[in-house]
Amino acid sequence: MNWQEQKLAEGILYTDMYQLTMAHLYYRYGLHEREAQFDHFFRSYPDYGEHKSGFCINAGLEWFLDWIDRATFGDEEIAYLRHQTGTQGNRLFEDDFLAWLRGRPASAGITLRAIPEGRVVHPNVPLTVVEGPLAQAQLIETPLLNYLNYQILIATKAARICQVTRGQMLLEFGMRRGHERGVNAGARAALIGGADYSSNVGASAVLGYEPKGTHAHSMVQLFMALGEGELGAFRAYADVYPDSCILLVDTIDTLESGIPNAITVFEELRRQGHEPIGIRLDSGDLAHLAVQSAKQLNAAGFPDVAIVLSNQLDELTIWQIQTQIAAEAPRAGLDADELIGRLVYGVGTRLITSKADAALDGVYKLVAVRNGAEWTPALKISETPAKVPNPGQKRVWRIYDERDRATADLIALAGEEPGEEERLHLHHPIEHGTFRDLGPGEISTVEPLLVKVLEDGDRVYDSPTIEEMRAKRDADLSRLDEGVKRLMYPHIYHVSLSRKLWELKQALIASARPE
Amino acid sequence: MNWQEQKLAEGILYTDMYQLTMAHLYYRYGLHEREAQFDHFFRSYPDYGEHKSGFCINAGLEWFLDWIDRATFGDEEIAYLRHQTGTQGNRLFEDDFLAWLRGRPASAGITLRAIPEGRVVHPNVPLTVVEGPLAQAQLIETPLLNYLNYQILIATKAARICQVTRGQMLLEFGMRRGHERGVNAGARAALIGGADYSSNVGASAVLGYEPKGTHAHSMVQLFMALGEGELGAFRAYADVYPDSCILLVDTIDTLESGIPNAITVFEELRRQGHEPIGIRLDSGDLAHLAVQSAKQLNAAGFPDVAIVLSNQLDELTIWQIQTQIAAEAPRAGLDADELIGRLVYGVGTRLITSKADAALDGVYKLVAVRNGAEWTPALKISETPAKVPNPGQKRVWRIYDERDRATADLIALAGEEPGEEERLHLHHPIEHGTFRDLGPGEISTVEPLLVKVLEDGDRVYDSPTIEEMRAKRDADLSRLDEGVKRLMYPHIYHVSLSRKLWELKQALIASARPE
Repeated sequence: MNWQEQKLAEGILYTDMYQLTMAHLYYRYGLHEREAQFDHFFRSYPDYGEHKSGFCINAGLEWFLDWIDRATFGDEEIAYLRHQTGTQGNRLFEDDFLAWLRGRPASAGITLRAIPEGRVVHPNVPLTVVEGPLAQAQLIETPLLNYLNYQILIATKAARICQVTRGQMLLEFGMRRGHERGVNAGARAALIGGADYSSNVGASAVLGYEPKGTHAHSMVQLFMALGEGELGAFRAYADVYPDSCILLVDTIDTLESGIPNAITVFEELRRQGHEPIGIRLDSGDLAHLAVQSAKQLNAAGFPDVAIVLSNQLDELTIWQIQTQIAAEAPRAGLDADELIGRLVYGVGTRLITSKADAALDGVYKLVAVRNGAEWTPALKISETPAKVPNPGQKRVWRIYDERDRATADLIALAGEEPGEEERLHLHHPIEHGTFRDLGPGEISTVEPLLVKVLEDGDRVYDSPTIEEMRAKRDADLSRLDEGVKRLMYPHIYHVSLSRKLWELKQALIASARPE
Repeated sequence: MNWQEQKLAEGILYTDMYQLTMAHLYYRYGLHEREAQFDHFFRSYPDYGEHKSGFCINAGLEWFLDWIDRATFGDEEIAYLRHQTGTQGNRLFEDDFLAWLRGRPASAGITLRAIPEGRVVHPNVPLTVVEGPLAQAQLIETPLLNYLNYQILIATKAARICQVTRGQMLLEFGMRRGHERGVNAGARAALIGGADYSSNVGASAVLGYEPKGTHAHSMVQLFMALGEGELGAFRAYADVYPDSCILLVDTIDTLESGIPNAITVFEELRRQGHEPIGIRLDSGDLAHLAVQSAKQLNAAGFPDVAIVLSNQLDELTIWQIQTQIAAEAPRAGLDADELIGRLVYGVGTRLITSKADAALDGVYKLVAVRNGAEWTPALKISETPAKVPNPGQKRVWRIYDERDRATADLIALAGEEPGEEERLHLHHPIEHGTFRDLGPGEISTVEPLLVKVLEDGDRVYDSPTIEEMRAKRDADLSRLDEGVKRLMYPHIYHVSLSRKLWELKQALIASARPE
């Protein structure tokens, strides 16, 4: 793919074919400019097999907005569509429709509300709400899902990993194993979710973060092949980067060769007036090696150099490493907390691919259609009650209890003002007769979650910086119950419906069932 | 990210930071133009938990070559690097190094051999062999792995799915759940691996395949909200696409509403001289619904319309669906094979993300360094024997037995000619004393697998078309033992070392261990 082809593949044709055939059908029926509302939400938290998440971190909006800002039906796109044919060789898209499309930006007429990036979010809550001409709103379904699903998945994974890093540095190292150019979005989402830096130079450049890295085994191998050995490699690294010296010590044998050689070079560095930064362990029993490496380093007078760990890390392996260190460090005469406090985590594959659950099940559902001055709610009745989307034009509120903890997200109809109600009724999303009623003493704040981002195609929102998103994430996580944040078998956060929405949904289901 | 930023992020800075710090170190030590050889290989087949693969399909090379062709250190990249600093605020990259980089294309001096795309490949076999100046060869490690790992993963998954589709059409539907813009590479890899079409319009446009799709639930919901019902939606679709009419029948109730309405519209279509194409099932018990839908369609005189299945499909679910149909169809008075012969499979998430094993463990290892006229083999001794890469300048051969079946891949030193040997010695890659000796009557062909792709930075290879890659895949799979192709617990294909390579490796390991 050259740049020209890439522009074609990633512009307004970056969508599923059926969005275009439906848009054409709407055009033929005079429905293409009929206003509709679509909700974007995910159905379930990532489930990593032996563990699952109790929350997600929202991410991806700004890059989707960048896409929508530049996606337009230009001559090349129109020419391509003109040549699409059906099974009988007849053209799929007629000229009048193509004339309507030509020059049309993806954002034309679109009003978009969204929960800001960095915020804690939960299943079935509309994260992004699109109102606009049916044809346009349909076309952007695929790119919206594509841009948001993945970044939410990765920001969530990064936030989970940060739950166990105890404030130590987390580096995103996954570029080589991620899904091709999706890795740039992955690096961004990892930063939003809590990674401090990424090794990905291009993404870091664009995002304004310093790219981080040390050296590879190949550099040590090279000096070995040239007869200089591991020690020669370490000396060269210290020579070129005397103030940024982190040495990878596992090319030959970590404890017998790597650490002794690193200590030799660290001592030389110190004599020259430089302080070494750290060592990196990339294979073997990382907990055991960290303890034994620390013991050697401490004995040599380097109790402060960082110990960077990498190799198939995720939140559970890090947790397990810390547990093992807590058991092993005292036996080696070391303080476990002190040792854990000098660890740095380089997390690759399992972060950038969310390896054990590599997809978020985000969907985009038609929920209302404009009929004159009214909005008619739209319904899809599926096999299972949990999969029937909530109909109608809606807004989302987060309810904080008297301890200022988030106790529920409330999905209500547009126009409802739950903050003004005497008692708040939170209905279970599926079960009949299951609800909570909260009185005035039980609520501290009722916070609207959606903000307006696009209005009639124009951006009316200044995207926060990634640092601001990170601050939002921290604030939201600090107001979330500890049980919801458990890495395994988390307490399930309440996502509730207002009484009006519950009743509307039941009435629509009853009327839509076939006789 | 705007286009300008995207070009920066996806150009020559599309790499890990340590590649640049190492390149700079090599420059400082006068080693940057020293010739080196790196091997790219993967260590293990994708393992999907309850099942694993016994082969992979190679893919991704052409798009990596496109990247290397356009990646150059321009002014913007150099300016960015000039501003990178270490912990003390001192510059990481000095001016002389940046002057050397400026204007330098990623491919400068690189000779690259590769196994062509579409071919069956196995662990530890060098798929891509890079020779070139150390600094250049190091810089391209990350993009090479990034471009190839993911496409191999997805081509393999698609090929596995094709093992159970019995020649029926396979559609790639995963764009909305894939990892952001990686989905375009995913669509390409799926086509190489065996998908017939993709729903991804942009990728299809660039690759020269027709994008495929039907309609969404939202179209039916829309007509319902407008009072026209599911029948109105189906009529509209048939009206606009009379010769490409595939109707999605599960918005309300598949058997009570969707199929009866589809039959009504199909009858109307036929009266107008058009033949309907199919229905699509997207939820519920797909096997049961396929049987019952077929029964209704047959009774109405539509025994040939396709039944498109989608919703969390992969090779095991498709296999299970067919097994269930084999049991249920006769009870419904249907021929199971006939029914299975009208199925079409739309596979999304589990193909585009290789969901249960979302990363291939491809690596890129230094194996030899030029010392004057000689190549010195380079070694990395890791904790486990299986992870010690094979040293030295090597070539790869595929050995076909007397039945013309592939019986082993042989990794030999460059210069060895296994085709000319009387008896072929195939040594186990790790176990001492385990080998096979093949006599002349036991070998039909000894095929070299690597072809030269880049020579001193220039492309010397015409990439095959995707159709040619698909033909290679079919040919290779037909020459692979059935046991190796089992979906579960496959027989392990032999990847062997030549005697010379085995002996070199053992000698190097012995000499490199610390005293």
